[in-house]
Amino acid sequence: MESDIYETAWQKLLDSIIYYEDRPVGTVAALDTEGEAVNYDQCFIRDFVPSALIFLIKGKTEIVRFFLLQTLKLQIKETQLDFLEPGRGLMPASFKVVYVDEEEYLKADFGDRAIGRVTPVDSCLWWLFLLRAYVIATEQYCLAHSPEFQKGIRLIMELCLSARFDMYPTLLVPDGSSMIDRRMGIDGHPLEIQSLFYSALLTARQLLIPDRENFKILKAVENRLEPLAAHIRHHYWLDIERLNIIYRYKGEEYGEEALNQFNIYSNSIPYAQLSEWLPEAGGYLVGNLGPSKLDCRFFSLGNLMAILSSLTTKKQSQAIMNVIEQKWEDLIGYMPMKICFPALKNRDWEVLTGCDPKNRPWSYHNGGNWPVLLWMLAAAAQKTNRIEIAQKAIEIAARRLKTDEWAEYYDGKNGRLIGKEARKYQTWTIASFLCAKEILDNPQNMKIVSFDFNDLVECS
Amino acid sequence: MESDIYETAWQKLLDSIIYYEDRPVGTVAALDTEGEAVNYDQCFIRDFVPSALIFLIKGKTEIVRFFLLQTLKLQIKETQLDFLEPGRGLMPASFKVVYVDEEEYLKADFGDRAIGRVTPVDSCLWWLFLLRAYVIATEQYCLAHSPEFQKGIRLIMELCLSARFDMYPTLLVPDGSSMIDRRMGIDGHPLEIQSLFYSALLTARQLLIPDRENFKILKAVENRLEPLAAHIRHHYWLDIERLNIIYRYKGEEYGEEALNQFNIYSNSIPYAQLSEWLPEAGGYLVGNLGPSKLDCRFFSLGNLMAILSSLTTKKQSQAIMNVIEQKWEDLIGYMPMKICFPALKNRDWEVLTGCDPKNRPWSYHNGGNWPVLLWMLAAAAQKTNRIEIAQKAIEIAARRLKTDEWAEYYDGKNGRLIGKEARKYQTWTIASFLCAKEILDNPQNMKIVSFDFNDLVECS
Repeated sequence: MESDIYETAWQKLLDSIIYYEDRPVGTVAALDTEGEAVNYDQCFIRDFVPSALIFLIKGKTEIVRFFLLQTLKLQIKETQLDFLEPGRGLMPASFKVVYVDEEEYLKADFGDRAIGRVTPVDSCLWWLFLLRAYVIATEQYCLAHSPEFQKGIRLIMELCLSARFDMYPTLLVPDGSSMIDRRMGIDGHPLEIQSLFYSALLTARQLLIPDRENFKILKAVENRLEPLAAHIRHHYWLDIERLNIIYRYKGEEYGEEALNQFNIYSNSIPYAQLSEWLPEAGGYLVGNLGPSKLDCRFFSLGNLMAILSSLTTKKQSQAIMNVIEQKWEDLIGYMPMKICFPALKNRDWEVLTGCDPKNRPWSYHNGGNWPVLLWMLAAAAQKTNRIEIAQKAIEIAARRLKTDEWAEYYDGKNGRLIGKEARKYQTWTIASFLCAKEILDNPQNMKIVSFDFNDLVECS
Repeated sequence: MESDIYETAWQKLLDSIIYYEDRPVGTVAALDTEGEAVNYDQCFIRDFVPSALIFLIKGKTEIVRFFLLQTLKLQIKETQLDFLEPGRGLMPASFKVVYVDEEEYLKADFGDRAIGRVTPVDSCLWWLFLLRAYVIATEQYCLAHSPEFQKGIRLIMELCLSARFDMYPTLLVPDGSSMIDRRMGIDGHPLEIQSLFYSALLTARQLLIPDRENFKILKAVENRLEPLAAHIRHHYWLDIERLNIIYRYKGEEYGEEALNQFNIYSNSIPYAQLSEWLPEAGGYLVGNLGPSKLDCRFFSLGNLMAILSSLTTKKQSQAIMNVIEQKWEDLIGYMPMKICFPALKNRDWEVLTGCDPKNRPWSYHNGGNWPVLLWMLAAAAQKTNRIEIAQKAIEIAARRLKTDEWAEYYDGKNGRLIGKEARKYQTWTIASFLCAKEILDNPQNMKIVSFDFNDLVECS
């Protein structure tokens, strides 16, 4: 019975592979045969991440290599000083194989066909994550060291590090520019992007050859790492001690020495709820920070990726795992795990989502439960040596996923309902489940998803 | 009596001048002697705009020249690939004269000491506006054509036009990055910045010498102008006809041909209020646009500057003036004019301002009345040949400003209360009043504040 579910999952994953020039190049978003395809026939870069990881773990490395090569070709390479094309360095949200006059080619979507026209900022960051995973898994560092890949990495870094209207070490992005690709009050400097950005900086430092061409960009990468980590570890961190400090903030402080640098009014913080909810030994990174803004929602992806990239200190990582363990009903419930907690409700939902019916409270991105987060949870648990959390979560997922036909997401405060508009046979649900199990069973697999600040990749 | 108020104003304006190396270089924000100075002893770039205009009109051009020269020196010139300094091309929010060992120098503030640490995106755009006004007023085109100024213009354009995480022709900026320099739900692509950006593009096209060095950037400027205008004129425009279309939008449209490109849910639009409020012959540019976001508040600065820069069509400009005329109580009331309408209230205020007590409903930036907007209103009225609007507005202002000691802003739904925390003798209140009168009295003065798409500045 137990092996059965893994075999079924693996078979479904193989079924989702798409081919280009007769070679595997990615996986479709979902194999759901009910309803119209809309854009589920595409390979999304972010969706392919758990697929790629499990393929690497299982030794099927060719599909990942070909994916990296082909998506690199889709990256915008020309300097764009007009807006008519996406910015140089940007990677598409997704691609699909199309046929014109019996010729195959890959058609990229940079958000220009997406619902709401959102920009896929996370794509280029995930792409770097996968490139690093590939070269570590295969020890084929030469791929990353080839001129094309060096240029690709450089362009992504230039895009992230170029001059901009901002004074923080974090990245300024539009609302909905990552996995949460709908408006949900995560404009500005959302945690998810910052965690991925930090891992991207570490990757660039590992993979860029320190030659003359890369000298300047490597220096910029180096200059950004520590201030970014310091900024997040301090200003984004919330535990009962920080909550006490913020609660007593004075407003309108002027000058370089201001304690309340971002002019946050403590009435805007749900301090009554937080003071009850926060475990004594718990803490987490808040979702966002800006002038007069501290978004205290718990965002899982940003917190888990912060642990994996060592953006959080060891102590902070343990505190995050404590929150997950002690707030199990809220953050795991009947399906690991909640994408963010709590949901936006009532007027907050109207104002911040723009009355998005798909993001009703406790549904979809607004407090739904997403099995794709399982691989990150398992990896964070493994990294912090809290494997009982991963075990328990995988058991919960195993109880339902096959029966529920590998649903995309779950609704309800405890994740007990299959998502109202969830696709079945969602590839990243399947891949994440497989990946989580492999990470739990074999700590060696951590090397492709975990970062240490001092990591260096040697040239082979 | 009438001349008396103008003489008093002029004298107060002269008193506000600050000197550097014994030469006039700017005006302080306020001459209020009550209360502590905080940052009102600085010269803010955006605050200096009406001062500069009235000085140019009155033939006192040297202060403007020296201001342009000195602020140009404060612009960030080095490539910044780390975040540790503001982006290359950025202009400071303000500067002040400081003394170290009896040596004078100018100290710039890029927002690093500001309350809430906001980035002054509008500074570089206003700086270009003033440079153009100066060269037109003095016919000293050679100043703009000098290598230093050419470089300064180029850097601003590069900052605005460089690669970024965005797919629109508009500029992505953090919340509170312009005159409304506190959080107020104007993150993303706020109208105020887009109107100033359009005038900056027109200015760059006029003032950059078409040589080899400028070739690429001039092409980029040219490429951006029309798509930006088309985007704003279509997607930001709201009148009863557009409201009808948006009201019947279908959600979740996918693909390039989607009618509801930004996936706006009509429940998020205050259509009931708007269908009552909007005059039949009226229309205006909405405050913001993004995925699932259409901010229907009326922002005065963005709309007036859109008229001045010809970002709106002639028909649209008339429709905006119709709204101002027919919604006089709401938008002008007892002091021209309302900065935005309506105010954020209740939970919207909590969520979008972060409970900012200075931005309570109908106070300060959140629906307060600002005399500084008078010069833009007068100029927009002059440009659209609706001078009775300017006359009436100036009369209203004249009745109160001197008695109220040139208050910074007014509170209340109808602008009848002097702002709770308003400074007295606020320089831009004084300068704007003088400037409005000169623009009304002499249409020739329009040439320094108004743009036509086909404007060209000849080299002398």
